[in-house]
Amino acid sequence: MTRPRHLIVRNIKRADHTAIDELARMGTATVHEALGRLGSTGPHFRPIQFGASIAGSAITVSCHPGDNLMIHAAIELCQAGDVLVVTNTAPSTHGMFGDLMASSLMARGVRGLVIDAGVRDTGDLRRMGFFVWSQHVSVEGTVKSAPGSVNVPVVLGRQIVNPGDIVCADDDGVIIVGRELAAEAVRLSQARRDFETATRIKLSSGQLGLDIFELRAKLTELGVEYVDQLDD
Amino acid sequence: MTRPRHLIVRNIKRADHTAIDELARMGTATVHEALGRLGSTGPHFRPIQFGASIAGSAITVSCHPGDNLMIHAAIELCQAGDVLVVTNTAPSTHGMFGDLMASSLMARGVRGLVIDAGVRDTGDLRRMGFFVWSQHVSVEGTVKSAPGSVNVPVVLGRQIVNPGDIVCADDDGVIIVGRELAAEAVRLSQARRDFETATRIKLSSGQLGLDIFELRAKLTELGVEYVDQLDD
Amino acid sequence: MTRPRHLIVRNIKRADHTAIDELARMGTATVHEALGRLGSTGPHFRPIQFGASIAGSAITVSCHPGDNLMIHAAIELCQAGDVLVVTNTAPSTHGMFGDLMASSLMARGVRGLVIDAGVRDTGDLRRMGFFVWSQHVSVEGTVKSAPGSVNVPVVLGRQIVNPGDIVCADDDGVIIVGRELAAEAVRLSQARRDFETATRIKLSSGQLGLDIFELRAKLTELGVEYVDQLDD
Amino acid sequence: MTRPRHLIVRNIKRADHTAIDELARMGTATVHEALGRLGSTGPHFRPIQFGASIAGSAITVSCHPGDNLMIHAAIELCQAGDVLVVTNTAPSTHGMFGDLMASSLMARGVRGLVIDAGVRDTGDLRRMGFFVWSQHVSVEGTVKSAPGSVNVPVVLGRQIVNPGDIVCADDDGVIIVGRELAAEAVRLSQARRDFETATRIKLSSGQLGLDIFELRAKLTELGVEYVDQLDD
Amino acid sequence: MTRPRHLIVRNIKRADHTAIDELARMGTATVHEALGRLGSTGPHFRPIQFGASIAGSAITVSCHPGDNLMIHAAIELCQAGDVLVVTNTAPSTHGMFGDLMASSLMARGVRGLVIDAGVRDTGDLRRMGFFVWSQHVSVEGTVKSAPGSVNVPVVLGRQIVNPGDIVCADDDGVIIVGRELAAEAVRLSQARRDFETATRIKLSSGQLGLDIFELRAKLTELGVEYVDQLDD
Amino acid sequence: MTRPRHLIVRNIKRADHTAIDELARMGTATVHEALGRLGSTGPHFRPIQFGASIAGSAITVSCHPGDNLMIHAAIELCQAGDVLVVTNTAPSTHGMFGDLMASSLMARGVRGLVIDAGVRDTGDLRRMGFFVWSQHVSVEGTVKSAPGSVNVPVVLGRQIVNPGDIVCADDDGVIIVGRELAAEAVRLSQARRDFETATRIKLSSGQLGLDIFELRAKLTELGVEYVDQLDD
Repeated sequence: MTRPRHLIVRNIKRADHTAIDELARMGTATVHEALGRLGSTGPHFRPIQFGASIAGSAITVSCHPGDNLMIHAAIELCQAGDVLVVTNTAPSTHGMFGDLMASSLMARGVRGLVIDAGVRDTGDLRRMGFFVWSQHVSVEGTVKSAPGSVNVPVVLGRQIVNPGDIVCADDDGVIIVGRELAAEAVRLSQARRDFETATRIKLSSGQLGLDIFELRAKLTELGVEYVDQLDD
Repeated sequence: MTRPRHLIVRNIKRADHTAIDELARMGTATVHEALGRLGSTGPHFRPIQFGASIAGSAITVSCHPGDNLMIHAAIELCQAGDVLVVTNTAPSTHGMFGDLMASSLMARGVRGLVIDAGVRDTGDLRRMGFFVWSQHVSVEGTVKSAPGSVNVPVVLGRQIVNPGDIVCADDDGVIIVGRELAAEAVRLSQARRDFETATRIKLSSGQLGLDIFELRAKLTELGVEYVDQLDD
Repeated sequence: MTRPRHLIVRNIKRADHTAIDELARMGTATVHEALGRLGSTGPHFRPIQFGASIAGSAITVSCHPGDNLMIHAAIELCQAGDVLVVTNTAPSTHGMFGDLMASSLMARGVRGLVIDAGVRDTGDLRRMGFFVWSQHVSVEGTVKSAPGSVNVPVVLGRQIVNPGDIVCADDDGVIIVGRELAAEAVRLSQARRDFETATRIKLSSGQLGLDIFELRAKLTELGVEYVDQLDD
Repeated sequence: MTRPRHLIVRNIKRADHTAIDELARMGTATVHEALGRLGSTGPHFRPIQFGASIAGSAITVSCHPGDNLMIHAAIELCQAGDVLVVTNTAPSTHGMFGDLMASSLMARGVRGLVIDAGVRDTGDLRRMGFFVWSQHVSVEGTVKSAPGSVNVPVVLGRQIVNPGDIVCADDDGVIIVGRELAAEAVRLSQARRDFETATRIKLSSGQLGLDIFELRAKLTELGVEYVDQLDD
Repeated sequence: MTRPRHLIVRNIKRADHTAIDELARMGTATVHEALGRLGSTGPHFRPIQFGASIAGSAITVSCHPGDNLMIHAAIELCQAGDVLVVTNTAPSTHGMFGDLMASSLMARGVRGLVIDAGVRDTGDLRRMGFFVWSQHVSVEGTVKSAPGSVNVPVVLGRQIVNPGDIVCADDDGVIIVGRELAAEAVRLSQARRDFETATRIKLSSGQLGLDIFELRAKLTELGVEYVDQLDD
Repeated sequence: MTRPRHLIVRNIKRADHTAIDELARMGTATVHEALGRLGSTGPHFRPIQFGASIAGSAITVSCHPGDNLMIHAAIELCQAGDVLVVTNTAPSTHGMFGDLMASSLMARGVRGLVIDAGVRDTGDLRRMGFFVWSQHVSVEGTVKSAPGSVNVPVVLGRQIVNPGDIVCADDDGVIIVGRELAAEAVRLSQARRDFETATRIKLSSGQLGLDIFELRAKLTELGVEYVDQLDD
């Protein structure tokens, strides 16, 4: 392909469902840490609800700002266990998604939406139990008149999302795990979780991170000095 | 009038209460869409509570930033069913409104506040059940020393608000409906709501927006191509 | 001392616990107002929970952005009734604090955290009942490799925080009360609270701030004019 | 009129050219101050050039974000001495205006553009000497497919702009002077300018504002205390 | 590869130099428009100088925020005609690049820098004639202690940048053209430029875009009404 | 002192003029780096001019937002070689300073202004050669009615500024050097400058930072791998 085209890609590869569900249980902070602090989309995608923790396969959408035509095209390609990832070719605060589209996605078993724009009908969405992470909440509606693409690589915050990549989202935000990293991510995250559990027990009993992680020597090496009191 | 003056206007025209209450039931997204996507004040006015949905007649206030003298002047002119709309002549994050003023407004039957600044005592306001949409939450208090106006046309985000215009606010934000549009807005919003209800039923049963809105032809016309798979 | 150094100061002076607890009961807006509208850190520190109202002695930390080594060093110096105040030498959105550190702080009786960066594990923190005020929520984790200081004067938003100063935080944000002002702050806040209670009763019964605060004369003096109606 | 409509209004009233040109010479800060600190659109409209100072009659445009169809419609209605004012129904960073449209406007004697969005071809615009104040600079181009209005009242930042109102713009930003205030604005601005000139001479010779404006008494009255030295 | 690794890739494919130089002459707005409005990194990358227009092959860098170790590693791989593209794994305002690194890059014939962070020594950089587009200007310096990657795909604003992709930058911002699109981009941009030149001549002579682009019919079709005057 | 008071402190200690002038010659990036990367006020204070590089003793001012009374009080206390540092008790975009005050300050030999708010008359200020670093440019004027303080410790961005501290400002922003650090800052900055000069010569001749700073070993130690090519 040498010319820029607008494409809707029908078939994508997805990661193993067992791995995806296990990542949902881990939470974004643990997975992110386990992968060497990779995958964060940044602090600007915020949940419209508290307490949701999901993971799913990315169906990616690239829209013209303020135009939701391509979201309609994407819905047909969604399967149970997917997460819809909507991006725009320029910044937008439009409420590009609402309760009607959520009805459609819930009928297909989609687990949630991550959108680099606004969302609306947030009261209804919370009542319906449809989970959303967005940059804005806004009543500003959209048109259906400009072309775009579905299931092509897109940029979501600071990450590239390929169709079929794993989207993990909870109260802390949204991270992306490459599809081919699924098994490794589970393995590393489980190890991380076990380490965290063990550490939590120690810390709750009063042991200090300074001692557990052997940081006292590091402080000395970096030239940090202990003094009894500031003289002012 | 040829010189800029500071005015407090005692009497304003209000829209019919039945129409206002009907718009509150519709929600901002439905009304905004019904009116051809007009009236949004933008994504920056956020509720301090979840689940409130109100509409009321605007009592408008124009203040000096960080000075709430004119809010005091406005309260006297409020009636049951009104919504107080507070703006500033320059950007401000001050907490210009708190629980004391809310006590006063609740005693008069005012339905809520929209303020282009900060608000404080938000814990108390939630406990009292007084609804607020603001740009900021801030403890920073105010003085009472600069003149301003009440019930003159003001700018709220991206909208002109004339005194007596209808303010609709819910979890999605704040929209303004011109007083003279009240009946038409109700009629258009009811039609929009009925359309949404019918569409929701179809979508929940698995029909696609692509088919319901006949968007497949549009995609073709715009040159969007379906492919089975991305070759990489 | 003439060279910039990285210091960990072991001993600090704290204010009287009775005074601190009384300030927690007052709430930030009342204390801020009582002190002549001083002490606000500004509108950018937001709670991750609703309804918490705390006060405590500041343990101050100055970190390199995205590096939590010095937080570990600070924990050892925390006592029951303290509040941890974490700042950075440059802006950062990193989630520099999570549930592991919170376990450690809760084991020591620390009342909460104020951090000029991001926080993560927010779902867990809410479940644990550990209170946090931050600028961001973010999964982005940190390293432990750069030096900094503990219990030196730091800047938190618009305020200088000296170790041992009183940090008050609730739904409205975070304010700082100088340690040496503790008793005076309590006295002034109690007076302010009594005044607010009396005023609230009057306002709820329908009296107007215009009359209670004698603002009608002020409006006239400032040249604000009453008119019956806008002619358009 | 009771239904929201999209209108292009052919004829508008303009203020007297002599008054407009005099306001351009005064500069925005002087006019703003002379009018009692009214009319500022806020700090977000920035010039793409240094040193321009213009005033003109507003031709107002309301667009759909990212769609410049209505700007084309507006150009036909522009006359020599006008300033084009472009707003959007939702926030946009699109580069909605470039050198082609500037060629068209320069052929008609238009003095500049103020746009609540982005602008592009900024290098060319500077070379052509066409003056622009915008919120953003962006290459992101637009479509021509959504309806809007020309010469209806619009909101520009914090101001209502009626068609024919006077737009003043220079290095400090953009202010709006109501058409009916033109003569009064000139009179007040000239007085302000004379006052500023006289004051500048005094200040340059070393006299203090404290004495010229008799502020020493005010400081005392407000309880500000002079001390010789801070004891620390 | 299944584990996340930190890589420095020595060899990349570059586009044809003739095509790259031709795109530099076109300017970002023309190329962006010619490609169907694709490729914009968004409005947040601003030049530190006026009047530069460059294009070059991307050498991509992924750093830890506030750490410039990987920029040092990247310099060795730069050739004449390249543009350095620096990104971070989390948001940063650090001044991660200054005149020393610019000396190094100029010695290798590098055409400029695009950085998703801050830059410093901007006065020196302007004097040296080294071109930079950045998100921030900041004195805040960096450490050299965290790993990252060179010449892997990165995210720059709203775009994926693959090593060897073409970076075009001028006063309007930064766009990315896929390496494989080089020839097509030149062809489309030349056509667009010729169209713009022809249009500019017509518009400067007073013809209207309304007529040239046949927009009058579109206005009618969209229901936009012409009226002679607003009745108020 | 136990009660919050508004103070104007007449006498402050200043650093040695020779040291201050030497720091101005160094530039902010060199001084900041020499002091171990301390002192930055952050990326939000921007110059209104290009090419100025100053240093001076801080005269500090704390104002109510939108009120410049205390700036007038501060001017009397300024001496040749000082830099005026203006802060607010809450965020403000007001143009709190203009050409009249600059006339007064230039008559006293003041070297510039750093202001945590807006500035206006920027065209005039550039023509007069008075240097300003601000957060905003804005025509929005101020009143003269609220008390504040002069020459007390203030917060400027991320730094505490004590009266008499050294303010260094150039195209890269503003840094603060503690008065008592003056001699040490000069010594460290000169060493840093000599190191930079030597490094610049090496880099310009084609040597690499990788070799000069011995970073190749570090890359290996951190697990960064060199590969010849990305296989895709």
